This record gives sequence, structure tokens and C-alpha cells, in this order.
Amino acid sequence: MAKILRVNMTDLTAKYEDPPEKYALWGGRGFTTAVTYHEVLPTCHPLGPLNKLVIAPGWVSGTAAPTSGRTSFGGKSPLTGTIKESNAGGLASQKIARLGLKGIIVEGLPKEPGKWWTLKITKDGATFLPADDIAGKGMYEVCKILAERHGKVAIIGIGPAGEMKLTNAGICVNDTENTAGRYAGRGGLGAVMGSKGLKAIVIDDTGGPGVPIANKELFDQGRKKMADSSREHAITKKDGALNSYGTAVLVNILNEAGGFPTRNFSSGRFELAAQISGEAINAGVKERGGEGRVGHPCHPGCIIQCSNIWPKPDGSFHVSVQEYESVWSLGADCGIGNLDDTGELIWLCNDIGLDTIEAGNTIAIAMEGGLLKFGDAEGAKKLLAEVRTGSPLGRIIGNGGVFTARALGVTRVPAVKGQCMPAYEPRVVKGIGITYATSTMGADHTSGYTIAPEILAVGGKVDPFAVSKADLSQAFQATTAFIDASGYCLFNAFHILDIPSGMEGMVESVAGALGTDWKVEHIAKVGMEILKMERAFNEAAGFTKADDRLPDFMTYEKLPPHNTVFDVSNEELDKVYG
Amino acid sequence: MAKILRVNMTDLTAKYEDPPEKYALWGGRGFTTAVTYHEVLPTCHPLGPLNKLVIAPGWVSGTAAPTSGRTSFGGKSPLTGTIKESNAGGLASQKIARLGLKGIIVEGLPKEPGKWWTLKITKDGATFLPADDIAGKGMYEVCKILAERHGKVAIIGIGPAGEMKLTNAGICVNDTENTAGRYAGRGGLGAVMGSKGLKAIVIDDTGGPGVPIANKELFDQGRKKMADSSREHAITKKDGALNSYGTAVLVNILNEAGGFPTRNFSSGRFELAAQISGEAINAGVKERGGEGRVGHPCHPGCIIQCSNIWPKPDGSFHVSVQEYESVWSLGADCGIGNLDDTGELIWLCNDIGLDTIEAGNTIAIAMEGGLLKFGDAEGAKKLLAEVRTGSPLGRIIGNGGVFTARALGVTRVPAVKGQCMPAYEPRVVKGIGITYATSTMGADHTSGYTIAPEILAVGGKVDPFAVSKADLSQAFQATTAFIDASGYCLFNAFHILDIPSGMEGMVESVAGALGTDWKVEHIAKVGMEILKMERAFNEAAGFTKADDRLPDFMTYEKLPPHNTVFDVSNEELDKVYG
Repeated sequence: MAKILRVNMTDLTAKYEDPPEKYALWGGRGFTTAVTYHEVLPTCHPLGPLNKLVIAPGWVSGTAAPTSGRTSFGGKSPLTGTIKESNAGGLASQKIARLGLKGIIVEGLPKEPGKWWTLKITKDGATFLPADDIAGKGMYEVCKILAERHGKVAIIGIGPAGEMKLTNAGICVNDTENTAGRYAGRGGLGAVMGSKGLKAIVIDDTGGPGVPIANKELFDQGRKKMADSSREHAITKKDGALNSYGTAVLVNILNEAGGFPTRNFSSGRFELAAQISGEAINAGVKERGGEGRVGHPCHPGCIIQCSNIWPKPDGSFHVSVQEYESVWSLGADCGIGNLDDTGELIWLCNDIGLDTIEAGNTIAIAMEGGLLKFGDAEGAKKLLAEVRTGSPLGRIIGNGGVFTARALGVTRVPAVKGQCMPAYEPRVVKGIGITYATSTMGADHTSGYTIAPEILAVGGKVDPFAVSKADLSQAFQATTAFIDASGYCLFNAFHILDIPSGMEGMVESVAGALGTDWKVEHIAKVGMEILKMERAFNEAAGFTKADDRLPDFMTYEKLPPHNTVFDVSNEELDKVYG
Repeated sequence: MAKILRVNMTDLTAKYEDPPEKYALWGGRGFTTAVTYHEVLPTCHPLGPLNKLVIAPGWVSGTAAPTSGRTSFGGKSPLTGTIKESNAGGLASQKIARLGLKGIIVEGLPKEPGKWWTLKITKDGATFLPADDIAGKGMYEVCKILAERHGKVAIIGIGPAGEMKLTNAGICVNDTENTAGRYAGRGGLGAVMGSKGLKAIVIDDTGGPGVPIANKELFDQGRKKMADSSREHAITKKDGALNSYGTAVLVNILNEAGGFPTRNFSSGRFELAAQISGEAINAGVKERGGEGRVGHPCHPGCIIQCSNIWPKPDGSFHVSVQEYESVWSLGADCGIGNLDDTGELIWLCNDIGLDTIEAGNTIAIAMEGGLLKFGDAEGAKKLLAEVRTGSPLGRIIGNGGVFTARALGVTRVPAVKGQCMPAYEPRVVKGIGITYATSTMGADHTSGYTIAPEILAVGGKVDPFAVSKADLSQAFQATTAFIDASGYCLFNAFHILDIPSGMEGMVESVAGALGTDWKVEHIAKVGMEILKMERAFNEAAGFTKADDRLPDFMTYEKLPPHNTVFDVSNEELDKVYG
């Protein structure tokens, strides 16, 4: 059975444990949540000695299941104060799983603050390597240096933002080109890693035992159904929407819907949206050639391949990936409508170690606060670069949107539970607003992506303006928790929501791997068990239904072009977990 | 009957209202709490249009009752997110009351941000005067300018910190010398005033109707008992502890007890305590002569006269007042042991418009975070002066201790509900820790001053290390709420807790003024009604018992010299309002 690797940064020890009963069932987000729920004092300081950083591959990560390379990172969030799971693509998940590890639990604070370590994990065990020589370096350089030293390894690391314990610091995972493009960005878990003196984790799965499959026949049946479903659906198939245009295929769609937050959520439509759209990315990549790519995978075994590599005008590598959320946050939300600008801003976030969604919101808030003008791309780059210096201004920006708003006296703050909103306007798409409000994670689209039926007519079709969607949001939140535990990329939801055999395939592959008797009807039930632990943690940390609310300005400030407010009742919000 | 003055900063109107039934009973904190509870959305942004600033004299303010010149300021706190009442001495209370006003409610945000107003209130009504010419100025200069323009008026105002909506901004009230020495400091209500574009309020009570007394005989009997009691007790009598040494008489006492927080709460004893003690203030004032004073009143009619004027070496005015809390926070907690340094730091806080308790904690946290060294008084002055400039560093410092800790990655943060602790170590004096944890206001000694029996043997005598004090804290919190509603200075508690006729006198004077039949047994009951509204507001704002906790480090970090932790159980904490 897969082991737990428990790492203590105080005495620099690492020991393997058989998972106790309470963790035995869980993978991915299920594991990070269960460990945080059982082992972390909910009222502790997230950067103090009582918090833990938990890392886990999903149930089927490291197997032949398609598009299943997500790594979950969890603990108590220094950004939100809630429990947190944030997952990333890249190389880590599969390698951790193939080393026979169910998860890694990092505990304790270093005896000598200011001393940095790299944890190296191989089939022979875990060792602590001094990392003072890579401390302070950006993640692009760190990935390069660690690959030179350790070969074809998975790398998990933090940039200067995490070292400084800034609460918008994410955790980076290297990708197929060994660049720093994959982030468990949301919720500041990079600061938790930084608090523990851990600059990087290097995983070499050479000679590892691999992932046991309890029922190979069922597993194979399931993964094939999943693959077929993925290859059939218009959104996920080869040369389909995601493969051709990446996630930024959503730009024109949301802009058309009037739900594309612009200039710090003061409008739902951006006049330069087309210039930062998936179509523009595709055209730019083709025009410039060179190292540019669309339809690019972030980890081996992905058959959706929604990633891209954005090239500089001369065709050389600029950044991977121009994601919908990133071109929105660092683009439209800041009034910036140029892909070379968003590319550079994303590169800066990736290198310094910041979540792009929060960083874009933060710059937009700084623009509203008068620090720079909307649309000032060069100013935005300077502002992000400031974070690296550790200056007072950099520390403000590096602590995210709510923090920056308080520094500057800005009151239009699109955040829930301390975390800024992603790229969907809740005054136009009401279901996603319910998810933002009630998610265990703060404002987070991935925790219950009702955009699928509300905007994309996936998994049914519902009016975005309709306000009775507690059940819809709950169903999405529960299903998502299951998917986040599986290691499957959430983008599989696009096809399995429409294709019943795909949904069956997901459950069968998981049930086959684990040896459970789960059917489709178990998905929401098992997902809800994860959510219940998360809600219980948050309740013990002091969160109540009063925290399950959108910021007040969205209830009285009308958003153009539809001139609507967020009018979902508190009663409806409270029904989600009522 | 006294009227309510309702001021709207959006359309610059002010109207007089008869108080509705739900407010009719209340004065002081009772009034500010009732209005906030009934009129402010608990989940609103404290600096947005839905918050209000409420100002009220106490029940007996403006009468002949001794030492009763407190003005209460209330609303939702931008520092803590809780309901907030903070009261100050100085001239405002009596003049507002004598104009026949029960309270002032300031609503709305200005149409033109960046435009500033002075509200002038006389017997003829309220007018709005442009204040752009005094915007940006410190409160010492503002007091001078407004007195030149308006004569012997009460002045309520904010410094640059409040204008910038920094969440450690307090509200200043001028004092008997028309200097900027009296602050409703705690909880950032200066930022609420700033959000409303209100730089100052000028109150001229010439020709005002005065305060009605329902039962003059009972009132006179009560106030005389109060005065006699005040003049009899060792702490409050003429040439007694407070009159001779000011509140800083506590320095040596708490230091001796090992409960004097030093260098950001890393020790309970300060080797230079004697140099910033009340005894040292008294000696310094006598030695330097000139404008120096001890036994000085902050408002007419005070018979305790605990204030002082600290002179410069040449005898000229430096600052009023070197208060216990201020010499502790800006002294011991920063490792600074010199009264000229604390005097200058207090002057800077008073001028810029910052709460001294929070400001000292903030500097101490910055010292722990490495921005400057403990004991660096010149560095501390520069850091405070930075707030005035609006620089990023200034905005960090001006937002208080929790904010600064997050900017710098400091985890030893002595705060509850976002507000830093006053000058008593809860690991040594457990009852005050219970008050800090459970107060409706965040960490606040004045909300339930169990120091009286725990350290001073006033109102009984209890062991400071004993942990079963939920009842004690509750009794003090309820009694305090009553006193805060009365307009009486809380220092009256010292004598009325020991002298039964004093306690009777307080109730009789209030009952006489209001025409109620209250007796001593009503004090805690009426106080509890105020607390219930405050708890209900906080609960609706999202606060739970998980917020009624001290920071985790105090439960595992032993404090020298006693090497004790805060070991009051959560069950005991929850009993206070259980």
C-alpha cells in the first residue's frame, strides 16, 4: 500500500508511515483535506509551527488514466484563513505516485530561520540538501539549476514571494519543457512552504514501485471510456476548442455575455477582448512560429492538451501558458489588451512565484487606488517586479488584492474570504457567484464551475441570470471535490458532464484503481464527504454563513452593459450547505 | 428631549430627529451601539457607503456630574470588522450634550472624493464648511487653526492617517489647552470619518439648552456621592496615585508583576521600566518646570485629573499625555526606555492621527520583522513620520500591527480580532486575557479591566495566575458597558468598586438624569443589554467563538520571567458569553 512521507523541517527528518484508516481512502484533495482537518489546529497562525503543508497525487495519478496528472497542495491558507487545496499540472503528481507515495506531509518550522533546503525524494528515501545557493532566485532559474543537478526530475518550488511568506505566493511545478509554468497558485500555500524553509522538492521516480491497481479490468475499462469521451467532445477533442485555442477560448464568449470583468470589476465587457482571446493566441503562435505552440500538454499522458507556449516576436520562448484566467486578470481586469504584455506579466508571476489571478486583481486594485493608470502595461510590469525586491510596495502587492485595497483605501474589492475573484462576473453569471460565496476556498471558479451550464451549455443549459442555483452550485462543488481527489484534470468535466459513458469511465477507473464499488451515484456523495471536512475545518476556524457572501458593492453597484447587481438572496446562498 | 442630528455627506444635509423608541434610552456607547446595531449592515465594507459614524455624549455628560466628559464614537471597525465603540476625553462630550443633542449620525460617502468638509454645529444648526485648506494637516495645527476661526469650541478631527483611510486612524478631540491629546484611538474609526470626507467637526455650545435632569434631587444626591467617593479613594483622590503619577503609575507595578509586555511580547519585564514610569514622569515634570504638569484635567469638571503635560528639557510644551498605555506601547514594547522619546512618538501619533497602542505594537512588530532594531527610538520616529507621507511603508505602518506582520512575515502577533493588545500580558494576568479574547471590540483592556482585582486589589483581590475568571471578566465587561454609556470616565471604577456609596452614586446620578428607577443591581443588566447588541452585530458580521481566542503563540511560547503560557481553556473563554 502507498506510504505517507512525513517530513519534519525542525529536526530535518523524514519518515515513511502506513496511512492510518482515516487517510486510507483518500487521494489528491481528499488526502490534503483529511490531513489538514485531522492534524491542523483551525485557529492556528497559517505561517506558524502548527500549520502543515500537505502534497498529494490523485487516486489515478501515475497510472495510464488519461489527463490525470494533477498534484494537490493543501493546508491552512495564509490568504483566506480557511482550509485550502490548490492543484497544479506538471510533472510532480505522476512521479510522487510512482514512488509509492500517497502523500507528503511537511511539518515544523526551521530551527535556523533564513536557512533554505531542498528535499530530494527518490526510491531510496528522502534527503535534505542545502538550498541557500538557490534562495532568492526566480523559479525559471531554479528549475534549470535543479534539472542540471538532478536530471529529469519533477520539481516543486517557490519563488522569492514564497520565501518572503507573502500571502499571494503560489507553489510551482515544472512542466514537460522544465519551465516554471504550472502553479498551485491560489491561497498562498507558497508562503506556507516558505515558512518551513523549504525552497524546493525534487522527485526522481526512477525505479519506483509504480501505482498499484486493485482491479485492472475495471480500471482499464474506465480509463478507455474516459479517453473515448474526451476524444469525442467538441471542447476536449483534438483540434477542439481547448486544444486549438486553450482556455482563453472563453475570452470572447464571456465578453459577449457581458460577464468578463474589466478594470477592477467596473464593467462586464472589454473593448480589447479580441486581442487577448484564444483566437488571437492561436493566430499569434502560427504567425510567429518558432517555439510557439498551441495544443500543448503540461504533463505526459494528457490527451486534451489545452496548454500553449507563447513566443516572442522572434519566435523564441516567452511564456507557457497564456491561460484564460491569466490573460483576463493581468489583461482585461487591468485594462491591458496585448498578449505580449500579458505574456510578460504571466512570466513575472511564474518567476517570482505569484498566483496570476490574485496578482492581476491586485494590480487592478492598485490602478483603482491611483498607483498607476488602467491600461499601463509597463507600470504593471514594474509593479510586479517590485515584489521580487522585498520593498514595502512589493510586500503590499505580494500580499494580494484585499491587502492592497486596505493599504490604498480602495473599497471596490472583488473578493470572498480574502481571495479575489476569477474571470466571471457574478452580477451576470449568478451561479458562479453562488460558488464564489459558498466555496470552502474563498472566491474560486474551479471549486464549482457552474459556467459549464450557465454559459457553455455543457451538462445542461441554464439562464446565467437565474438566481435559484444553490442546488446547481452544490452539485458542481461536490462533483469537483471528487475530481480533485482523483488526480484527473478538472477539464475532463467538460466531456463527462455531457457524455454518460465518460462519467461512468471516471468512476470505474477510480474504483478499479482503489478496489471500491463506487458507481456514478457515489461521485457527489464522496465529494460531499471531502466538503464536509472542509466546512468543519472552516467552521472551527471561525467562518460562518456571514462569510458566505459576496462583497457588498456587488449588491448595489450596477455592472454595465447589463446594469445588473448580484441579487441572489442570502437564503439561497445558505441553501448550498444548509 | 434631546435630538439626534443626522448628517448626510453625500448631499451635505443635516437634520434633527426625535429619537425613536429604540434609541430613547441610550447614551454614549449605548447609543453608538444601538444605532450601529439597528442601522449598519454587519457584513458591509467599513469604509463603504453602508457604514456610519456615530458620536454620542454619555447620559450625564454636560451636567455637573464629576469626571463625566467622555465622548463615544461608534460604527463598524475597519480594523477589526466588529462593532466598535471608542471613547475619548476632551471638550466634545459636554458641548454636544449642552446643545441638546443625544448623538450625531454621519452617513454616506462624498460625491466628490478628495473634497473635505468641516461640520460646524451651533445652537442654530449644522453647516458644512469647505475644509480643503486644512486637509493633509496634522491635528495640532488643525486644532490651532479651527480655534482661531471659531473661538472656544470643541474640535473633533482626523489627521492625515484618517484622510488616507488607514485602519489605525483614530479620532481626535481637543482638550483644555486646545491641543490634540485626546483620542478615540482604537479600531480605526478615524478611517470611517475619513471615508466620509469629514476632516473635522466644530461644536460651539453657546446658548445651547443644556442637559435636562428628570429628577434633580436624586441626580444631585448621586453626583455628590460619586464626588465624595472619588475624593476618598487612594487611586483617584487629590495627590493620589492617578493625580500624582498619571496612569503610568502602573508601569512599575506591572513590570514587578512580570506582566509588562516587552519587545513585542517576548518578555514580561523591561529593564528600563523605571525610566518611563509615572514616578519618572512626575520627577521630570517637577525638575523641568515650565509648562509641565501632573494632575492635569482633560476636560472641565474632572476631579481625578490624571493627565499630564510633558515638557521639553527647556520646560516648553512637548506633549499631553504620557499615558501608561502609550509609554508602554511606544516604549517598553519597542525596547525604548526614555520619556523624551516616548513623548515625541506620542506627539507624532497625536498629530498624524494614530492610536498609540496599535502604533507601538506596529513598530514593535516591524522591529521583530527586521525593519529596525529594538530600542531604536530615532528609527521609530522616522517610521511613524513615514505614515504622514502616504508612502507604501507608511501605509503599511498606518494599517496597524496585524497588517504590518503580514507584510513582513512576522508570526508573533499579539492581537485578537485584528486589534493589538494593550499593556498587560495575558500569560501572566489571565483575567485580562479572557477580556482580550472575548471582548466585542478585539483585544481591549478598557472593555473589562480585570486588572483592578488581579493586580491592584481593587474590587476584591484575585490571583493573576488563576484561570477560572469567565464570571469576573463578564462582570467587568457588563459594568464597563454601563459606565461607557454614562459618559463617566472609566477611572471612576477605581473608587466605586471599593466604595459602595460611590457605586450607588453613579446609578443615582444616571437614574436622576434619565428619570429611571435604576439601582445598583441594574448596572450589569443594562450593560449586558449593550453587550448583547454588540455580540449580535458581531455574530451577524461572521464572528464566532473561534474568534474569541488569543493568538496561538501565547499558548505554546513561554513568557519570561515566569515562563508561563496562556492556559485558560476554551471552555472557560466560551463561558463569558455562554
